[in-house]
Amino acid sequence: MTFPPTPATPADQPGGAPEDVGLLAPGRAGSPAEAATGDAAFLQAMLDAEAALARAQATVGRVPDAAAGAITAAARVDAFDARELALAARAGGNPVIPLVAALTAAVARADPAAARHVHAGATSQDVLDTATMLVARRTLRLVRADLARTAEALAELATAHRRTPLPGRTLTQHAVPTTFGLKVAGWYTLVREARTRLGALRLPAQLGGAAGTLAAFAAGDPPPATRRDGAAPPSGPRPGPRGREEPEDDIGVRLLAAYAREVGLAEPVLPWHTLRTPVAELAAALAVTVGALGKLAADVLVLSRTEIGELAEGGGGGSSAMPHKSNPVRATLIAAAARQAPALAAVPLGSLAAADERPAGAWHAEWQPLRELLRLAGGAAHDAAELVAGLRVDAGRMRKNLDLTGGLVVSERLTAALAPELGRARAGALVTAAARRAAAEGRPLGEALLAEARLVEEVAVAELLPPRRLKELTDPTTYLGSAPVLVDRALRAGRTAGEAAP
Amino acid sequence: MTFPPTPATPADQPGGAPEDVGLLAPGRAGSPAEAATGDAAFLQAMLDAEAALARAQATVGRVPDAAAGAITAAARVDAFDARELALAARAGGNPVIPLVAALTAAVARADPAAARHVHAGATSQDVLDTATMLVARRTLRLVRADLARTAEALAELATAHRRTPLPGRTLTQHAVPTTFGLKVAGWYTLVREARTRLGALRLPAQLGGAAGTLAAFAAGDPPPATRRDGAAPPSGPRPGPRGREEPEDDIGVRLLAAYAREVGLAEPVLPWHTLRTPVAELAAALAVTVGALGKLAADVLVLSRTEIGELAEGGGGGSSAMPHKSNPVRATLIAAAARQAPALAAVPLGSLAAADERPAGAWHAEWQPLRELLRLAGGAAHDAAELVAGLRVDAGRMRKNLDLTGGLVVSERLTAALAPELGRARAGALVTAAARRAAAEGRPLGEALLAEARLVEEVAVAELLPPRRLKELTDPTTYLGSAPVLVDRALRAGRTAGEAAP
Amino acid sequence: MTFPPTPATPADQPGGAPEDVGLLAPGRAGSPAEAATGDAAFLQAMLDAEAALARAQATVGRVPDAAAGAITAAARVDAFDARELALAARAGGNPVIPLVAALTAAVARADPAAARHVHAGATSQDVLDTATMLVARRTLRLVRADLARTAEALAELATAHRRTPLPGRTLTQHAVPTTFGLKVAGWYTLVREARTRLGALRLPAQLGGAAGTLAAFAAGDPPPATRRDGAAPPSGPRPGPRGREEPEDDIGVRLLAAYAREVGLAEPVLPWHTLRTPVAELAAALAVTVGALGKLAADVLVLSRTEIGELAEGGGGGSSAMPHKSNPVRATLIAAAARQAPALAAVPLGSLAAADERPAGAWHAEWQPLRELLRLAGGAAHDAAELVAGLRVDAGRMRKNLDLTGGLVVSERLTAALAPELGRARAGALVTAAARRAAAEGRPLGEALLAEARLVEEVAVAELLPPRRLKELTDPTTYLGSAPVLVDRALRAGRTAGEAAP
Amino acid sequence: MTFPPTPATPADQPGGAPEDVGLLAPGRAGSPAEAATGDAAFLQAMLDAEAALARAQATVGRVPDAAAGAITAAARVDAFDARELALAARAGGNPVIPLVAALTAAVARADPAAARHVHAGATSQDVLDTATMLVARRTLRLVRADLARTAEALAELATAHRRTPLPGRTLTQHAVPTTFGLKVAGWYTLVREARTRLGALRLPAQLGGAAGTLAAFAAGDPPPATRRDGAAPPSGPRPGPRGREEPEDDIGVRLLAAYAREVGLAEPVLPWHTLRTPVAELAAALAVTVGALGKLAADVLVLSRTEIGELAEGGGGGSSAMPHKSNPVRATLIAAAARQAPALAAVPLGSLAAADERPAGAWHAEWQPLRELLRLAGGAAHDAAELVAGLRVDAGRMRKNLDLTGGLVVSERLTAALAPELGRARAGALVTAAARRAAAEGRPLGEALLAEARLVEEVAVAELLPPRRLKELTDPTTYLGSAPVLVDRALRAGRTAGEAAP
Repeated sequence: MTFPPTPATPADQPGGAPEDVGLLAPGRAGSPAEAATGDAAFLQAMLDAEAALARAQATVGRVPDAAAGAITAAARVDAFDARELALAARAGGNPVIPLVAALTAAVARADPAAARHVHAGATSQDVLDTATMLVARRTLRLVRADLARTAEALAELATAHRRTPLPGRTLTQHAVPTTFGLKVAGWYTLVREARTRLGALRLPAQLGGAAGTLAAFAAGDPPPATRRDGAAPPSGPRPGPRGREEPEDDIGVRLLAAYAREVGLAEPVLPWHTLRTPVAELAAALAVTVGALGKLAADVLVLSRTEIGELAEGGGGGSSAMPHKSNPVRATLIAAAARQAPALAAVPLGSLAAADERPAGAWHAEWQPLRELLRLAGGAAHDAAELVAGLRVDAGRMRKNLDLTGGLVVSERLTAALAPELGRARAGALVTAAARRAAAEGRPLGEALLAEARLVEEVAVAELLPPRRLKELTDPTTYLGSAPVLVDRALRAGRTAGEAAP
Repeated sequence: MTFPPTPATPADQPGGAPEDVGLLAPGRAGSPAEAATGDAAFLQAMLDAEAALARAQATVGRVPDAAAGAITAAARVDAFDARELALAARAGGNPVIPLVAALTAAVARADPAAARHVHAGATSQDVLDTATMLVARRTLRLVRADLARTAEALAELATAHRRTPLPGRTLTQHAVPTTFGLKVAGWYTLVREARTRLGALRLPAQLGGAAGTLAAFAAGDPPPATRRDGAAPPSGPRPGPRGREEPEDDIGVRLLAAYAREVGLAEPVLPWHTLRTPVAELAAALAVTVGALGKLAADVLVLSRTEIGELAEGGGGGSSAMPHKSNPVRATLIAAAARQAPALAAVPLGSLAAADERPAGAWHAEWQPLRELLRLAGGAAHDAAELVAGLRVDAGRMRKNLDLTGGLVVSERLTAALAPELGRARAGALVTAAARRAAAEGRPLGEALLAEARLVEEVAVAELLPPRRLKELTDPTTYLGSAPVLVDRALRAGRTAGEAAP
Repeated sequence: MTFPPTPATPADQPGGAPEDVGLLAPGRAGSPAEAATGDAAFLQAMLDAEAALARAQATVGRVPDAAAGAITAAARVDAFDARELALAARAGGNPVIPLVAALTAAVARADPAAARHVHAGATSQDVLDTATMLVARRTLRLVRADLARTAEALAELATAHRRTPLPGRTLTQHAVPTTFGLKVAGWYTLVREARTRLGALRLPAQLGGAAGTLAAFAAGDPPPATRRDGAAPPSGPRPGPRGREEPEDDIGVRLLAAYAREVGLAEPVLPWHTLRTPVAELAAALAVTVGALGKLAADVLVLSRTEIGELAEGGGGGSSAMPHKSNPVRATLIAAAARQAPALAAVPLGSLAAADERPAGAWHAEWQPLRELLRLAGGAAHDAAELVAGLRVDAGRMRKNLDLTGGLVVSERLTAALAPELGRARAGALVTAAARRAAAEGRPLGEALLAEARLVEEVAVAELLPPRRLKELTDPTTYLGSAPVLVDRALRAGRTAGEAAP
Repeated sequence: MTFPPTPATPADQPGGAPEDVGLLAPGRAGSPAEAATGDAAFLQAMLDAEAALARAQATVGRVPDAAAGAITAAARVDAFDARELALAARAGGNPVIPLVAALTAAVARADPAAARHVHAGATSQDVLDTATMLVARRTLRLVRADLARTAEALAELATAHRRTPLPGRTLTQHAVPTTFGLKVAGWYTLVREARTRLGALRLPAQLGGAAGTLAAFAAGDPPPATRRDGAAPPSGPRPGPRGREEPEDDIGVRLLAAYAREVGLAEPVLPWHTLRTPVAELAAALAVTVGALGKLAADVLVLSRTEIGELAEGGGGGSSAMPHKSNPVRATLIAAAARQAPALAAVPLGSLAAADERPAGAWHAEWQPLRELLRLAGGAAHDAAELVAGLRVDAGRMRKNLDLTGGLVVSERLTAALAPELGRARAGALVTAAARRAAAEGRPLGEALLAEARLVEEVAVAELLPPRRLKELTDPTTYLGSAPVLVDRALRAGRTAGEAAP
């Protein structure tokens, strides 16, 4: 059986270098998170993990200090070729295998005796998982800084506009008035909580050896003191008085603690090669972060519409076709991120169901989606900080839009005022008719209401609504409910949380 | 332009009643969570929300106590027809609109004066969101009980098997030995943490009125004391000394607190109509829960394979074709849940990016995926409890499988023992050759190693590995590393957390 | 280790019946697709599959005609209790196992000799997969009818508005004019293609027996003619002259063909228990359908906004709080469907990677998401048909909106007209300045352009743009490009395809 | 409000270059698809689109031939800096805007008069969408070549093993025998159909101008012949005799056709800026392709398990910890791809619901997921070709595994043979008991059956099953059903389709 060859035409030369430099990712190109998550950053983090392991082994007496020093000295990203390692990673399915070979060779050139201590007892996943957590920690710091910047600007904006009225909109239609400050207080709360959530994440070091038992760290090459008798060193600790091994004597557990310290990550209860909650929770928290920023962006996009015009991005983006356009580009790129993040988070969530002591695929599937989530969050937080810093608010337009429905936006209040006397149904019908008349005849709603009431002989209306009260009831700017109080409440909650936070 | 009609044939009558009774959902049929998440449960929760609102308004003096009592009395699920409401919900897009009409009519029959207080000032989303959180809280209690049951049984299982050796498997291949107890301790940790995570969720009441300002709760129909002057009651609190309104005077904020108390949910900082983190975090936590159980199921499925046979479900399921089969059905259904949950969680994560004060679609999209996640988690937790309670462990088969590779499973240790003398590369080559010989000739690995060493004139080997040590080094049951200590550590972490937990 | 029990409070009784009647699914409640996908519909389809199998076996001489008749007569949904089967399905993990028992009992009551032919040789998956395809076929017919209805109405709408100008909008901003007819022609094309795509789907019958070899259909109980010799009947066909079995002699393959005919589905090349492309392609096509309708909904939602007001749904939905509101409910519910469908489709796409002859979970995971996709598509198509039938188009408002930017919407054309003379950069700067002046001073763009040109001494402008031409160039209604021609083109493509279609 | 700064420690320097060179993507590093989808490939494709546009405009007389030539000459990837463009793309949100500036400058250096024809009338999306389709077409050719290679090898493998028996496995348990050839025929069918599906995709050129009306292509700068009268050229065609514009006169439509020809892509019915089915269908087809390969990988992973050992990858991958291991690396990387593809496909499926003439986010969200899908498919197809080429099949182990259950694997047949006489229930019970006895006592199943039958006084059994028949019935290798015939059938279907294919 043969398939017909597809003819190659000159126009079909695919091509060239495989590098990605962010051409299709304007949402993160040039952002701090981008550099923190590139292949070079991952490579350095893997080297950091290898170096930390050697130093940790030195602290528990399994590796000479000099060897740990030599390994640490050799673990510098600029000495390695990431592309070469990427290609070599195909054979075994992960980049640590060729990296260990390359690092061993590099160490051997500087200190031959140290070479055999490189990666001793560890498994690829120890290094790659630790590196991922290191990259995450470094990137989260940058993301959180941009979120803090965004939250601070939003707090100021909310304060400034706590009583600025604009139409509340539900299902695309004007509903009742709200304040721009309350809207911003919502954004603020989302951003602030996102920052807190990211800061609360548990980012553990990974160390378990081939199957998570830490066995190889105690095997072979025993410390000189225990070597003499010719017997194998105990692979685990001695049973204590209550028939339990004492963990403080366990070399594996001691090494785990030392390693976590050296690498600067949390010490896990167990090796987590296939207990993937740290990755799943990180992914979920990143998706929630991007989604929270996506709410801000969604509102900015609506309120920037040509017909609405209540907001504009400070430095709106241009167009290749229309010189006049000022697009809400930051909001657009955040919105694009928010459409990708949930799907990407689904991959690590799915990889929780990982069989065995290392799964064939579930682990490998996490790498790129998790990195992309870090970038989307980093890019979106960076864009949000820029967006908020430059946001232009047109309070006049908000006020003008509030009048677009000829008073329907306060029909809820008018109806409530009439309901005790007329009953809710009649009150509703009357107000609706009045608002239609107001719109049709271009008259103030109060006037139209009285005219309509006369028509249907609702004599009580005039009595219920003397001129001053009618004016007040039909003024959308006085129907803001608890909006300003809620703004204060949100900011106070932020201050309280901020004081408690690390 | 017309399209050709598709001819209807007799065999093509679609049909009948639209109800779902779980026929395609054996993973949750009959589980406690199923009943807690049915349409009747949601309907009751909506009624609970309406009743709680009336009572809360009574506590702040906006609704007479008698009316609140009448509304509470009428808010019983058996007085309403869920299907009728479902059909009527099409018109406005949510079931609260027809429910309010039906509840108002029911209240009117019992106490006409109370009817106009039904749902007064609220919006559909206040009721539906609160109901969803109530359903979540009720369901999570059931899920957590099943997780507790599962965790307890796993803790016992881990203790019993803390030193039971079996092959550690990575990328489907035997790697080095581990213990079944360590594997179970991992499951235990996942399940325990899932229970804690669900218990820590913030499930807030929802109350904001049409656009989240709480305005309507202060509008119209003012309490008698403030009625006389004929002026509109202040829609917000008076400015306090520092130019800020004092929230304690704000009727909306006071009502929010009272409502949260009445309905038994957390009080939110702000109305969260379009600040959807409570829903997104709930969805993510449920997906992590299902994924954690999916890890347990994935391992059970592998270890139950006919060729592996280390585990079997107590009451394995039958087959419609093969009378002899005993399938790992509980694990299968958990695995099926774990394949669905990440995708379902992506929907509420995506709905975070919701525009305006109520979005046109993002909110509506949450309802079914969230309910399904509650059911998947409830079903999977229930299945897991049953699975673990009946799990049959074949330690003999584990031991036998450990020998399948003729010693390769401890090659790591042998290599480590020889490496200091031979160097890592020569040691590795020698051990690999010996293991192949052992497998091929059916001889013990130690014997094969000596034979192989003689062949390649590695005279040092016999000296390095006197018989007693060789025997010990090739015994997989003594290469368990820190596995037992890690089991203790995981259980101790659970005890500590348990004592701290509410 | 014990966990603290969570105290149950009276308010926390979960409850009641587990049925779903669509309360949380207004997008499909009462739609034709809902009834076609309920548990009753699936149950009937499973019974149809069992009956078709018996009849097919009769046609190849493996089951007496009378038995096939008895089985067909008993296979009526109203004789079975779906909830009871759902609960019994837990044991083996699928509903066919208890259904076979119940059907066998029912047949035995009517014709004891026929009972042993029920499900003979088949496996649960044969029946459930076939039932799913039957349900799909029946539902797709309903979905396609609604799509046809929608497409026809859209074709008329596009024709009527082929030259109705409105602002083209990109990144939320007015760009250049387009016509409403072109927008509708896009919707039309999407809907028409969705209908064609669904009609082209391959929906195969499933038959393979326990492991897909069809072995049991030839085993045991041989036809009388081959029984006598006491030997087992050949389980496969005899080798033909070229050393190949002749498929036309193979009882399994003949039965497969007969079964497909009886059940009215396509005959597959192979049993597809774990070759899941039919399910994955169905899911993908449904997600594309919902997404296509989601485009229409997204546009309707934007154009219905209070500030834009170019479209309104005929029977806009009400609100529980605001009597005046007329919400775009159909569009909202379609948009909600479009947010769910991609995630749901990801589940069957993920289940393609299914191990073995029947996977432990991947198959089970498909059932509910696929059903939900059928419902979302059915509900969305039904909503779309209603939406389009009642859509109100406000061409006056479109025209008015076109003037909102004071001519910027045609700046592209003005720039193009000046560019040959001034160069593109200077032309662009001049037009942008003029449009700003026009907006600021409330003057016609042409006038502003001449004023601005004088200011910067672009003397050529007046010469290049004599009054008549200037007026024409600044009239947005004459800058429609190929829009009307494209409308014709889209409708013509639809007619051509319609004529070719079955 | 201020947030506490997070202190930076020396270990926390993120770092370095942002490039991705595939370090975290061993599934595609070095594959043909990788180079075809890198930023350089996209950049060249954008340049190809710009050049094709200029040439197309030349063919319809809107751009001088010399200018089109100059633009084509300048459109070479090595003249542009992709990173610089990526950074500049942030401002407007897409890379075409800075690319147009850079290309214009490059053209101006060579031929100043040609510069103003660069991108004339087009919008960014015209160029980026066309480039994406070009990249897709180029990549799909490579993917299809690898699929063809894979399918051919699978066809041979299926032929070679059409009668090689192995255990059919369902829900992880041995069910009944099947043949390895039938399993491979399933893989073959999936791969073959995936290739066909990809080949049938419609990959259209994109051209519409700012809002999809093609208006700018007819505006301004008219061809000399029509310039003289000083009037604006008609923006659309003249009405024809039936009151319809004649499309053949429409410059926009003629340009669309010419452009599609120049760029070598399909001509769309309409500009598809927000009619995204081409992208959604491409994404879905890629996800189905990866899922189909995922099925193959899932089977290889199971059958490679140490305890099963029926398959092994030719060049199994190593381990950083265990020198002896030979991991199924290709299958692992394919499985990892299959876990990512469905989630990635959900993004373009979600972007179908795109508002307006260009959406603010939905379009931008497509770029990276689509590129990643192309890479996952390319990498998986490449891995699959390698995997299949080197796959080692151990038919002896398959045969041995078939005996593991002591005959239960043919219990279905034995039961069927006894059922006519004993009834199905008694027959089933007897066979099950016999199989248990066989396993427990290590005796052949036939012998155990007779012993068991004697015990329960089923005298008919000995008569029904004379020795020769009993032996035959308990031989798993003769219970293969239609497996060999189905293999032939699958290959024949492939040949037929292959002959029909382009």
